[in-house]
Amino acid sequence: MTDAPTAAILIIGDEILSGRTRDANMHYLAGQLTEKGIKLCEVRVIMDEHERIKDTVAKLSKTYTHVFTSGGIGPTHDDITADAVAAAFDDPIDIRDDAREILKAHYEKSGSELTAARLRMARIPDSASLIENPVSSAPGFTLGNVHVMAGVPSVFQAMVASLLPQLTGSAPMLSESLRIILPESEIAEPLGVIAAKYPELSFGSYPFITNGVFGANIVVRGTDPVMLAKGVSDLREIFADSA
Amino acid sequence: MTDAPTAAILIIGDEILSGRTRDANMHYLAGQLTEKGIKLCEVRVIMDEHERIKDTVAKLSKTYTHVFTSGGIGPTHDDITADAVAAAFDDPIDIRDDAREILKAHYEKSGSELTAARLRMARIPDSASLIENPVSSAPGFTLGNVHVMAGVPSVFQAMVASLLPQLTGSAPMLSESLRIILPESEIAEPLGVIAAKYPELSFGSYPFITNGVFGANIVVRGTDPVMLAKGVSDLREIFADSA
Repeated sequence: MTDAPTAAILIIGDEILSGRTRDANMHYLAGQLTEKGIKLCEVRVIMDEHERIKDTVAKLSKTYTHVFTSGGIGPTHDDITADAVAAAFDDPIDIRDDAREILKAHYEKSGSELTAARLRMARIPDSASLIENPVSSAPGFTLGNVHVMAGVPSVFQAMVASLLPQLTGSAPMLSESLRIILPESEIAEPLGVIAAKYPELSFGSYPFITNGVFGANIVVRGTDPVMLAKGVSDLREIFADSA
Repeated sequence: MTDAPTAAILIIGDEILSGRTRDANMHYLAGQLTEKGIKLCEVRVIMDEHERIKDTVAKLSKTYTHVFTSGGIGPTHDDITADAVAAAFDDPIDIRDDAREILKAHYEKSGSELTAARLRMARIPDSASLIENPVSSAPGFTLGNVHVMAGVPSVFQAMVASLLPQLTGSAPMLSESLRIILPESEIAEPLGVIAAKYPELSFGSYPFITNGVFGANIVVRGTDPVMLAKGVSDLREIFADSA
């Protein structure tokens, strides 16, 4: 668990901070990273501002194995992510031939023109490698340990699918959960005892209230399947009357 | 717009980082803050770790007018938010009489015992004021400019409803949006021209792909309704054929 690569997600989007749009990419990528054995440690949502993006990318990229960004790589004036990420790495950025060829082929197929605005999407830092976009062609890119992807969920997911197989994971984190119909306050003490008994496992308690019924999902996580099964078995025994 | 109080949301929750649970509180509070005229500048999701919570709370509370936290104030061993926030402000924390009375009354009504685990939920920093919880009684609290609330969405929303009327907002940010059925790359140039013409307004372009049709929602934001109407009218005129 301590050896797993770590990650942060950086979501760039005023529209999410204003409450207008509900982010979907964080939840999607969080699940994918867990399956891959990459430990997601932090998510940030920040405003579409050059300095903020640059500083946050610089900080997160020094802290984690991987940083995944979402949003701000389209053709409009508020799409400033690519330039800010390039600035964070002090890497030159301009329209790059390989990205231009991809866009050109795409727009030729659809009989449209490669306008100046569309060419903005070919602005890629010099040292970056491209991330394929099978949905709408304009590529994402990886610069250093930062993976820059689109905000539109269908494009984001397609880019994640292109990218993730190239990254190295670790023993995936396994989890099992037990739904207990008891107020969390009655679960707390016995759960604390079991958590202390299995330091290699993590025991999370996630309370819910459904139609006035109080309960909690207890999620046990660990990389060792045998140890996980033991912990869960202890848990089932203690809460046999309420699970 | 520059005078609006600012805010950050801090979501404490391993279960969100693992992809198991999809956060609902960020989107809810973001919308409420925009209505109130409080500008949400940043959201962070971090792990349930004392030092991380403490450091992040300390940093965010120095940067923004308000910090709203979600999660980690229940009765179980992994509920460590209250202690970490107290530590960030160097404020003593223990079981407080006013919170104990609230819990006592609640559990007496339901004929249950006020166990040691339940009493954990009465741990409130000395200098904090309580935030009412009409759903399940265990209170949140405000310490300095940090508002500590539960993670369960129904409880979180009830606490927000208790808290927000007490905060000072500003002229609420107004917004109007226009759905344009054109690839964002064709919207970019005329939109840039209008955005330059109205520096008091912000113009966001949020692309979508629905059933293979490319389009974008253009969101115009500002606090002056007359200026907003002008900007939107210009926009409608330019995109008359595609809106």
